[in-house]
Amino acid sequence: MSSKVRLTSNQYGKAENRLMRVYRDSDRHEIRDLNVTSQLWGDFETAHTEGSNEHVVATDTQKNTVFAKAKELGVSSPEQFLMGLADHFTSSFDWVTGGRWEAEEYGWDRINDHKHSFFKSAPEVRTVIFTRDGDKDTLISGFNGLTVLKTTESGFVGYPKDKYTTLPETEDRILATDIATRWIYNTTDLDFEAVYTKVKEIILESFTDHFSHALQHTLYQMGEKVIEAVPEIDEIRFSCPNKHHFLYDIERFGLENPNEVFIVADRPYGLIEATFTREGVDENKDAWAQVAGFC
Amino acid sequence: MSSKVRLTSNQYGKAENRLMRVYRDSDRHEIRDLNVTSQLWGDFETAHTEGSNEHVVATDTQKNTVFAKAKELGVSSPEQFLMGLADHFTSSFDWVTGGRWEAEEYGWDRINDHKHSFFKSAPEVRTVIFTRDGDKDTLISGFNGLTVLKTTESGFVGYPKDKYTTLPETEDRILATDIATRWIYNTTDLDFEAVYTKVKEIILESFTDHFSHALQHTLYQMGEKVIEAVPEIDEIRFSCPNKHHFLYDIERFGLENPNEVFIVADRPYGLIEATFTREGVDENKDAWAQVAGFC
Amino acid sequence: MSSKVRLTSNQYGKAENRLMRVYRDSDRHEIRDLNVTSQLWGDFETAHTEGSNEHVVATDTQKNTVFAKAKELGVSSPEQFLMGLADHFTSSFDWVTGGRWEAEEYGWDRINDHKHSFFKSAPEVRTVIFTRDGDKDTLISGFNGLTVLKTTESGFVGYPKDKYTTLPETEDRILATDIATRWIYNTTDLDFEAVYTKVKEIILESFTDHFSHALQHTLYQMGEKVIEAVPEIDEIRFSCPNKHHFLYDIERFGLENPNEVFIVADRPYGLIEATFTREGVDENKDAWAQVAGFC
Amino acid sequence: MSSKVRLTSNQYGKAENRLMRVYRDSDRHEIRDLNVTSQLWGDFETAHTEGSNEHVVATDTQKNTVFAKAKELGVSSPEQFLMGLADHFTSSFDWVTGGRWEAEEYGWDRINDHKHSFFKSAPEVRTVIFTRDGDKDTLISGFNGLTVLKTTESGFVGYPKDKYTTLPETEDRILATDIATRWIYNTTDLDFEAVYTKVKEIILESFTDHFSHALQHTLYQMGEKVIEAVPEIDEIRFSCPNKHHFLYDIERFGLENPNEVFIVADRPYGLIEATFTREGVDENKDAWAQVAGFC
Repeated sequence: MSSKVRLTSNQYGKAENRLMRVYRDSDRHEIRDLNVTSQLWGDFETAHTEGSNEHVVATDTQKNTVFAKAKELGVSSPEQFLMGLADHFTSSFDWVTGGRWEAEEYGWDRINDHKHSFFKSAPEVRTVIFTRDGDKDTLISGFNGLTVLKTTESGFVGYPKDKYTTLPETEDRILATDIATRWIYNTTDLDFEAVYTKVKEIILESFTDHFSHALQHTLYQMGEKVIEAVPEIDEIRFSCPNKHHFLYDIERFGLENPNEVFIVADRPYGLIEATFTREGVDENKDAWAQVAGFC
Repeated sequence: MSSKVRLTSNQYGKAENRLMRVYRDSDRHEIRDLNVTSQLWGDFETAHTEGSNEHVVATDTQKNTVFAKAKELGVSSPEQFLMGLADHFTSSFDWVTGGRWEAEEYGWDRINDHKHSFFKSAPEVRTVIFTRDGDKDTLISGFNGLTVLKTTESGFVGYPKDKYTTLPETEDRILATDIATRWIYNTTDLDFEAVYTKVKEIILESFTDHFSHALQHTLYQMGEKVIEAVPEIDEIRFSCPNKHHFLYDIERFGLENPNEVFIVADRPYGLIEATFTREGVDENKDAWAQVAGFC
Repeated sequence: MSSKVRLTSNQYGKAENRLMRVYRDSDRHEIRDLNVTSQLWGDFETAHTEGSNEHVVATDTQKNTVFAKAKELGVSSPEQFLMGLADHFTSSFDWVTGGRWEAEEYGWDRINDHKHSFFKSAPEVRTVIFTRDGDKDTLISGFNGLTVLKTTESGFVGYPKDKYTTLPETEDRILATDIATRWIYNTTDLDFEAVYTKVKEIILESFTDHFSHALQHTLYQMGEKVIEAVPEIDEIRFSCPNKHHFLYDIERFGLENPNEVFIVADRPYGLIEATFTREGVDENKDAWAQVAGFC
Repeated sequence: MSSKVRLTSNQYGKAENRLMRVYRDSDRHEIRDLNVTSQLWGDFETAHTEGSNEHVVATDTQKNTVFAKAKELGVSSPEQFLMGLADHFTSSFDWVTGGRWEAEEYGWDRINDHKHSFFKSAPEVRTVIFTRDGDKDTLISGFNGLTVLKTTESGFVGYPKDKYTTLPETEDRILATDIATRWIYNTTDLDFEAVYTKVKEIILESFTDHFSHALQHTLYQMGEKVIEAVPEIDEIRFSCPNKHHFLYDIERFGLENPNEVFIVADRPYGLIEATFTREGVDENKDAWAQVAGFC
């Protein structure tokens, strides 16, 4: 090869395999509803440079494997399932040195506690990213799309004013956001279902329990409480829009508006992104680089 | 005017006014979160043919009115609010003979029963269309986006086979759909909140209580029970995709698949649309013509 | 059946069959890229009321048929293809008395006039709805998603002012819309490709050639010119948002803004919908009732 | 602060400011249509930990600044505009040490070469990310959403087969993808408009000029030619789905299908991501870490 360029970072695979796993061990069925992406890392250079596919585990094969493993391994949690996929691919092909496996999970509840009838109930999408790079594993869990709002106990004052500043200070506004968060586990020896529930509960509770001086301030409360309460998490990241609810000016029509009538804006929106790390632990910048977007 | 064409059906207004109405009468706040569209009917011909806007109530004015009326009238239900908008516009402008007002409502619950903190919880979007045409009013309520699934007690057999038929019969499959439904009220003298809750409960319960021979069969059960139980509804319509969950062929890999591993398909999907009408009542075709799409 | 309800309007089928038809008759390939929905009308009552599928042409069969007919009939235009599907279904099953077939078509151009390489180029989606109801056929063509904008030669003045009116009059504003239009053909004996191109050209040209006193005024110009120029069209309908571009107030920062800096709004938006009908021809209300949404 | 956690990575700002900049210097108007996100880096710790906003340049101020700068600086290219925003924010506030500014640009053409009437014509969205971190600047340009397809001269053979492999080899298939690409400039002293056009042309041409052994193979061709032809670019990255067009099995109906009738799949899809770097230059991993997603 006399090329002036070389292949550097690369990964490939099959994205968004929509898997429904049903458990019918009793007549009270259970379901897990996932969207699974598998991408491999390793020596794939000649596929790019020479058009040789001898190392290219077909994306169609990766798809088949996802569904086969749903039977072989089962899905007790999305974390366990992705780690199983990683074990399979890295042990099956010499030149596959790692990869990135990602899942979304959609939450369902029973209709009136029925044995086999469900409705899609979870407001949030649960997420997992598992990466393996040689002998280094990283497990990042999280969720997104959990929309929360408080009608008071939120303000924004004391910010710097320059010639482009027109925003009036307020001690009473609506605060609303779509919570998107990911956290890195420092172990895989835990009850993923229980910890997920606990983190979500802490975050929701933290949204309610203080006067918010800014969305930054509230995200810190959330992160601090999660890290204090969950020793298996050293680091948590948030990417949260400030979904503006603007007081509508109806005083022009002789009507008072004591924070009762708002117009909900689409764009632009504030966007607050922050990582909180346990004291004494270094931020895992390599891990976060595997994450699509800041969060 | 010597034109060869004339204006026939027409309507115009301001679409998707995103209104958040907060009630702060006690420190236990209440919220209503709506997306409101206002469109007027009447004599707007010269706006089209001559560029004269003397009859054009500006869409910006319609927007202002939506927010002002949220204060003046309040939002006890989306039905009551839209009827109030209709009264305003048809009484304020001689040439406005009617219109079409539409709302979506998004449902929120309290976080841990907190006084002023909420999360967006409702899996479905509640809908209302109110039309006034001279002295004829029509009120259509409904919801969409309620995704339900049963893992068994559903089959599909006995259908005609022609040369393009390849689908195998089955007595056990996943049935899943996104319920979109609208119903026409025969009165406006009712508790809109209570009836909405009741209709939704009947529909969910009906999804669970029978062996489904086809989605058509299940929709009929839903419609029949609603009309039997709610005398204020003479007619109900459904537009529901058959969201296919295909058994994944893992027998190729030496694995059994007794209805445990499925791939969820996006497109194409079955689409079943049906209207059910109380015996002795005529289908209200004019009303349904105001509805965007079959449902 | 002793039920208190009966099935009234209904239709069912397979929606969004994504068909790519390639012509390889020479080494200069041609492609047609369609999204096809097939829905049947007829006697399907017992499927709903009794769970009997003996009349239910499976939606899977309809899907197979769409792809088979793409080979058997070819796709010279989406109009011709949908009419062929209608002929097939209504002639194959006694109890199928009609149906509704819909297509979207996506437009591609060659990359550098290459023989078999294309890029998706068309800004608009071409649409067709063909319905057959017994011996009555209706053919509606159109397009949507064609976004146009003029930076001047648009104003809005002379509208009525009430107490909720705050919009200032202007003789110079941006006018922008996404054109969505459908028209009814009064014949099927025509060159669908040529007429489509002609209608689109007239509509684009009409957007440019006059001072617009309101979007209503501009839509009328478009409709009038189409009907005058195309004898095969008696009726055309538009559903067009007024996509607001608001002058940003930078005078607060000591900067002039002579219609140079605008913020583009998402919601709410004006929504103008109008039908224009050839003089001497009745509006075809039954035809429009088959159309999803006003347009 | 006795907290067990600390703030590590963070950024905040106003996202998706939809800016339309009109040039009216002659009666032949020009437009630039952008979606601009501004996010700041610096010392914002007390906003999180103490609820003090004394360093928080309000996101509303950032929004105002975007629109003011559209007048003050103009928009000769999205690259120039973002660099101007960076200069403003980093020079105006001591504690702002850098930031991340991102823009999408939507391309319009004149309708029939009209002076002030346009239609949205570009199939792709042009993108820019500019980051400043102290005295280190990084400029990444690109585009996404350019959908291309070839009907032949594409195959996939020679890949490893394991027990989960069922894909048949083929020497003739459709290859289709949505091109998403970003490249890093090694200088800011260039004609951004001209280089953008050149890169896009090279990529399109490279899609057509070889037999593709896999999408990996084609991406390499694209990257190699860009780097060879454009000395200002040392590195280019692609993230491209393999949009599957599956041959529809109509042989079951007695019909031949010599690569003429395909069904277009939505999910899952192949996903191929690769970075190509000029020989002798190190991959800029820090730069790519600022990019949302792999590409």
